[in-house]
Amino acid sequence: MIAEIADGSVTTPAGFLAGAVHSGVRYSDPARLDFGILYAERPCTAAGVFTRSTVQGAPVTVSREHVAKRRARAIVANSGIANVATGARGLADAREMCALTARKLGLATEEVLVASTGVIGWTLPMERVREAIARVELRPDGGRDFARAIMTTDTHPKHTAVAFSIGGRTYHVGGVAKGAAMLHPDMGTMFAFLTTDAPIAEAYIDPLWREVVDETFNMVSVDGDTSTSDTAILLANGAAGGEPFTAGSADSSLREALFAVARTLARALAADGEGATKLIEVRVSGARNVDEARRAARTISSSPLVKAAVYGNDFNWGRVLMAIGRSGAAIDLERAEVRLGDVVAYARGGPTNVDPATGVAAMKQREVIIAADLGVGSATATAWGCDLTEEYVHLNADYTT
Amino acid sequence: MIAEIADGSVTTPAGFLAGAVHSGVRYSDPARLDFGILYAERPCTAAGVFTRSTVQGAPVTVSREHVAKRRARAIVANSGIANVATGARGLADAREMCALTARKLGLATEEVLVASTGVIGWTLPMERVREAIARVELRPDGGRDFARAIMTTDTHPKHTAVAFSIGGRTYHVGGVAKGAAMLHPDMGTMFAFLTTDAPIAEAYIDPLWREVVDETFNMVSVDGDTSTSDTAILLANGAAGGEPFTAGSADSSLREALFAVARTLARALAADGEGATKLIEVRVSGARNVDEARRAARTISSSPLVKAAVYGNDFNWGRVLMAIGRSGAAIDLERAEVRLGDVVAYARGGPTNVDPATGVAAMKQREVIIAADLGVGSATATAWGCDLTEEYVHLNADYTT
Repeated sequence: MIAEIADGSVTTPAGFLAGAVHSGVRYSDPARLDFGILYAERPCTAAGVFTRSTVQGAPVTVSREHVAKRRARAIVANSGIANVATGARGLADAREMCALTARKLGLATEEVLVASTGVIGWTLPMERVREAIARVELRPDGGRDFARAIMTTDTHPKHTAVAFSIGGRTYHVGGVAKGAAMLHPDMGTMFAFLTTDAPIAEAYIDPLWREVVDETFNMVSVDGDTSTSDTAILLANGAAGGEPFTAGSADSSLREALFAVARTLARALAADGEGATKLIEVRVSGARNVDEARRAARTISSSPLVKAAVYGNDFNWGRVLMAIGRSGAAIDLERAEVRLGDVVAYARGGPTNVDPATGVAAMKQREVIIAADLGVGSATATAWGCDLTEEYVHLNADYTT
Repeated sequence: MIAEIADGSVTTPAGFLAGAVHSGVRYSDPARLDFGILYAERPCTAAGVFTRSTVQGAPVTVSREHVAKRRARAIVANSGIANVATGARGLADAREMCALTARKLGLATEEVLVASTGVIGWTLPMERVREAIARVELRPDGGRDFARAIMTTDTHPKHTAVAFSIGGRTYHVGGVAKGAAMLHPDMGTMFAFLTTDAPIAEAYIDPLWREVVDETFNMVSVDGDTSTSDTAILLANGAAGGEPFTAGSADSSLREALFAVARTLARALAADGEGATKLIEVRVSGARNVDEARRAARTISSSPLVKAAVYGNDFNWGRVLMAIGRSGAAIDLERAEVRLGDVVAYARGGPTNVDPATGVAAMKQREVIIAADLGVGSATATAWGCDLTEEYVHLNADYTT
């Protein structure tokens, strides 16, 4: 059984400390946190999944390099400046952030990962960064401050944790995340950092983490724009003891716990998309294979026309069919079925002719579920997004001028 | 030399007639045209390029079938109902539209192509369709009425024509087009119909037309949503005489004329995108190959964040780099260059630190040119789009409710 822990975070699992400070990299207001460090008291196995963009930030380059050995013990993160498109200087800065954090904590530089989010094309004010690293105090309840320090246009910090037991031993999984997709003018980036006190074998942590990320964070879309800095990291310190989990472990609770934390954070990211008033959950079934199921689900959840229809409570199932068609996923129109909310809109080869009031009622929900059965197989996928509002346009048009 | 013909259209080339009527399929106002026929007095070679969506309208299925023989002499088109997701009934209706038009004009059914745009999931009121086909009067100056009859949310009809001469013989290319992308609630579809009195060899018309469509209509994006009914057709009746143009023809004027007409229409479609206040032209150069150049150009021109920045006069070159990265196109950040308007924003590995007033001035144009040199090759591509405005959201959210 996976039990949620109230107000949990990355420091809920045993042996993880975190802290955050105001560095001045992002905010002038000294009360606002914009710089943080997450630290594991014991060695960890580690896995990282990063943006597939061909334009990558220096922090992504360095973290990718460091996590390649499946070992890491700290993450140093800032908001305000993404350190992207900053050339050799940016790379040196990212490396220095790792080196200084390592020195502070008595680690090897390669055990520190780095993540920056914010404006593209600016270099970091390294004096402030150095001072911030020195000032961060690590605490066993510092996870929520750390979640706050990595926020950009998020309206609230995102953190959660769960516990599960196997044979009398209790394990925890915690996580923090921030802003899905290129959320903000110049700002960008999704960060998701998960920790667990369960031991995970080096050979297992990478495929396990990729599977989790693929079905959770990679299924979130706010505006279809992918950041240059997306970073998802899992640290497993084994503080709870017991044998390392491997691909052959009989009990699936660890996997379920990781999925539970990642799914909670992914939904929170989608619901907090810029200008969003509603969460959209898209459930595709009956696809020929998982790849097509995912593509269909993501295309529906990121279609501007579907998103605008959800915003306007428009029972517009035609746009769902359009998005499926655009995704390239195979569909049999004679067997396909489309549901908006709990109302079937299309089935047995044609519209079900729902009366308008019923259609509007189905759409007038804070969470709108769109379900599409493609009628050609048995593969499924779920994706999350948010509605498209005038406020999104307003926020993204009126930043500089 | 390619000369534009004022107020030209599909009936500017010799031997093409067109007409349109109010059918009632779309409008109740009897003064508004919503049904049209384009007819060639002589046999034509023909080529068609259709939506790649896996959800295709019945008219697309039938037209694809008919044009496969590279022969066609008429196009029957309506707005109001797209005849998509309508099963066997929809297919029978599309076939009947061709058969009735063929009977009216003394053609074989296979010589008639059909195109419908409008609401998805509704079946056509065939009584009105039959009556409309009977009532259409074909005229040598009917091209502009035809352009008007195929409009959905377009704010004005789109038609143009050019002339060119080779060895004392004058040829014409004319075209009409409507609404790029899924422009409207439930409505969809880009139509582009071009005619020419130049003779084009059967073996040449298809590759020639695909090349033109790939570099013009396929480079237009209004909202990234692809319709179920996109249709681009070229009819060449050879009325101007002379030897058929082939892949080996020495003179490139025909190709240039087709490109000129298609490019004019493509730009007009982008500029008239729903809610748009500005045209965006994206010019990518220095790409590794044409495929990557096109992908980068299209990703930039369809990025919601780039489009919102253009709307808000935000000199936001970081979003252009972000979009290139997302497109998957190779880029060398040390050699890449990004220009917005006539101002270089990024070069030689870093920002050029443009002062804000200069940046805003570069963006405050009705046509904003975004140029990106990827620094890794010599391939180029151009794409067109429009800005993203609150009005787009408003139009697409508030249709049904």
